[in-house]
Amino acid sequence: MDKAEIESIIQSCSRFLTRHHRRTPQQVLSELAATTDPRLEDDRYGQGEIISNFETSIAGLLGKEAAVFMPSGTMCQQIALRIWAERRGTNNVAFHPTCHLEIHEHQGYRHLHNLHGILVGSPYRLLTLADLQAVAEPLGTALIELPQREIGGQLPSWEELTALLAWTRERTIPTHLDGARLWECQPFYQRSYAEIAALFDSVYVSFYKILDGIAGSILAGPADVIAEARIWQRRHGGNLVHLYPYVLSAQRGLEKHLGRIPDYCAKAREVAATLAQLPQIEIVPDPPQTNMMHVFLRGEADRLNAAALTVAQETGTWLFYDLAPTPLPNYHKLEFTVGEATLDLANDEIFDLFARLFSKCE
Amino acid sequence: MDKAEIESIIQSCSRFLTRHHRRTPQQVLSELAATTDPRLEDDRYGQGEIISNFETSIAGLLGKEAAVFMPSGTMCQQIALRIWAERRGTNNVAFHPTCHLEIHEHQGYRHLHNLHGILVGSPYRLLTLADLQAVAEPLGTALIELPQREIGGQLPSWEELTALLAWTRERTIPTHLDGARLWECQPFYQRSYAEIAALFDSVYVSFYKILDGIAGSILAGPADVIAEARIWQRRHGGNLVHLYPYVLSAQRGLEKHLGRIPDYCAKAREVAATLAQLPQIEIVPDPPQTNMMHVFLRGEADRLNAAALTVAQETGTWLFYDLAPTPLPNYHKLEFTVGEATLDLANDEIFDLFARLFSKCE
Repeated sequence: MDKAEIESIIQSCSRFLTRHHRRTPQQVLSELAATTDPRLEDDRYGQGEIISNFETSIAGLLGKEAAVFMPSGTMCQQIALRIWAERRGTNNVAFHPTCHLEIHEHQGYRHLHNLHGILVGSPYRLLTLADLQAVAEPLGTALIELPQREIGGQLPSWEELTALLAWTRERTIPTHLDGARLWECQPFYQRSYAEIAALFDSVYVSFYKILDGIAGSILAGPADVIAEARIWQRRHGGNLVHLYPYVLSAQRGLEKHLGRIPDYCAKAREVAATLAQLPQIEIVPDPPQTNMMHVFLRGEADRLNAAALTVAQETGTWLFYDLAPTPLPNYHKLEFTVGEATLDLANDEIFDLFARLFSKCE
Repeated sequence: MDKAEIESIIQSCSRFLTRHHRRTPQQVLSELAATTDPRLEDDRYGQGEIISNFETSIAGLLGKEAAVFMPSGTMCQQIALRIWAERRGTNNVAFHPTCHLEIHEHQGYRHLHNLHGILVGSPYRLLTLADLQAVAEPLGTALIELPQREIGGQLPSWEELTALLAWTRERTIPTHLDGARLWECQPFYQRSYAEIAALFDSVYVSFYKILDGIAGSILAGPADVIAEARIWQRRHGGNLVHLYPYVLSAQRGLEKHLGRIPDYCAKAREVAATLAQLPQIEIVPDPPQTNMMHVFLRGEADRLNAAALTVAQETGTWLFYDLAPTPLPNYHKLEFTVGEATLDLANDEIFDLFARLFSKCE
């Protein structure tokens, strides 16, 4: 089936298993136009109340001295690591093997900043203090991702997390929090964002994903680090004349979704309990610790994908199309992120959709 | 006078000497929402018709094989130079002393890409073939800016330009066109954008400035170079999940302003002829070659800036506030860019505004 046919099936669906309801650019821009004060002036090269007020509010939420808005997390994180590397005096940076910098950025950290990545721990498990202690090279900076996206959004316990960061702090190893999905951790830890971020020297957060902004991110940390980060942002080509579409949509996303995250997380646990009843399904982590999980489906990938399209046509509910491969040839991975659209589906309805899916693969 | 007071004077003005009419984010977003097809789907990480169709159309306009949309020119140009440097086998890049890479980017080209800038020619004159021939180091890549913004938008004649680029081509020196204001050159050369761009191996164009887009830029060139540029774009953190606000506003800007540029350029020549009658004014270049010029005002900077505010309050017409210093302590520089707002002012009215300004400084 070609891309246009799949697209037309998506278009015909009114309900969606994962994430939020789909919106076109026109719908997003109309909402922003309708919710923005007509007198609000634009930002210019990172200056102006529209952006500085937002930076201040996020710095406050994260309990950090200062914050800078950037177009992408890729930019925020390379820059944070570069600054810490120069202060620490070594270009070694330690992170999980599935770190975004390692697998999604064509290793920009190496090509642009000459940083040396040390992959710590197993790609299929959380990075532990023991993993970090086993590193034989000088540790420059340590990057920790909460939750660990590529293993289904897993989180260490608060005790494990604080023990790890007490160890790095004793050794004056700078620590950076990859908080691409930090907003989703709060129900698990039952602590404020500031309490979580206080464990780290710097933190990056994102405004699309669960917050449904257009794009954009913030790096927060000590004032001198953020001032230096603004220099690097310009060097990267990220100090744009206007960032206001992203800033405004980030604000809107926080207003709409931040208070809903406990509901999304609760629903993820319900969905996991429901789907675990099907023998063809494995859930990681089980129970989910955030609003996301990996759902592993047993079967042939082509048949599962084709069946999902048929179910979409029959029921008007979009499930998935591109299952990802796993080391087990007979299991395929669905990244299941619970959002506003998922809440429209009752748990027994989700069970029925998957039962129907598997019945088509028999 | 503090920033808020100045801002309130700007707000009270209904007419503006330079550029386009001021619009707030809400006005810009409302226009985009009203002019965008409600069915148009968003882009994702550089993919999707909304962005690829636009890239194709700009590649066509510039007569290049391929094009990639990026958030900023800073990103486009560093990336183009990095690619050419690796192909050429030397990190030396030659450009004018006022090149954007040298003076506005905290030398990202050096810090991120280890490129070595060779400043060619005088900061106050156009870069010439003789200047290039006088370089004693191996020439890697040559960057030429058309028009040369920091000297009032000056342009070499077509004969000078083609002679320079014939010389580089004979030596297989890759050439990159900094076309931040390329759109403004067309009336001077009376040639298509494709004919101008054909002289160069790669070209960057911008969609804010005279086109009044929110931000955004395009790098165009051979298909293999553009494919490689997409890798570097991701490394820079510029491959955003959604760029559609910038793409849509770039399209809108082209529709609204590209056909108006001859009018802006004609008006610039009229304004120059008008202002040259005042003994306190020098124009560079005279006559203007694009829609921009530098207007040098004789007097004390503080008095001129204060007088401009008083004129704004008295007439409701905003002139300027931050004059730039020059090597002559008694002359101060105004970058005068003719846009839609300038066309609202008759030439004798512009004369009167400046005569009134100078009378307040006596």
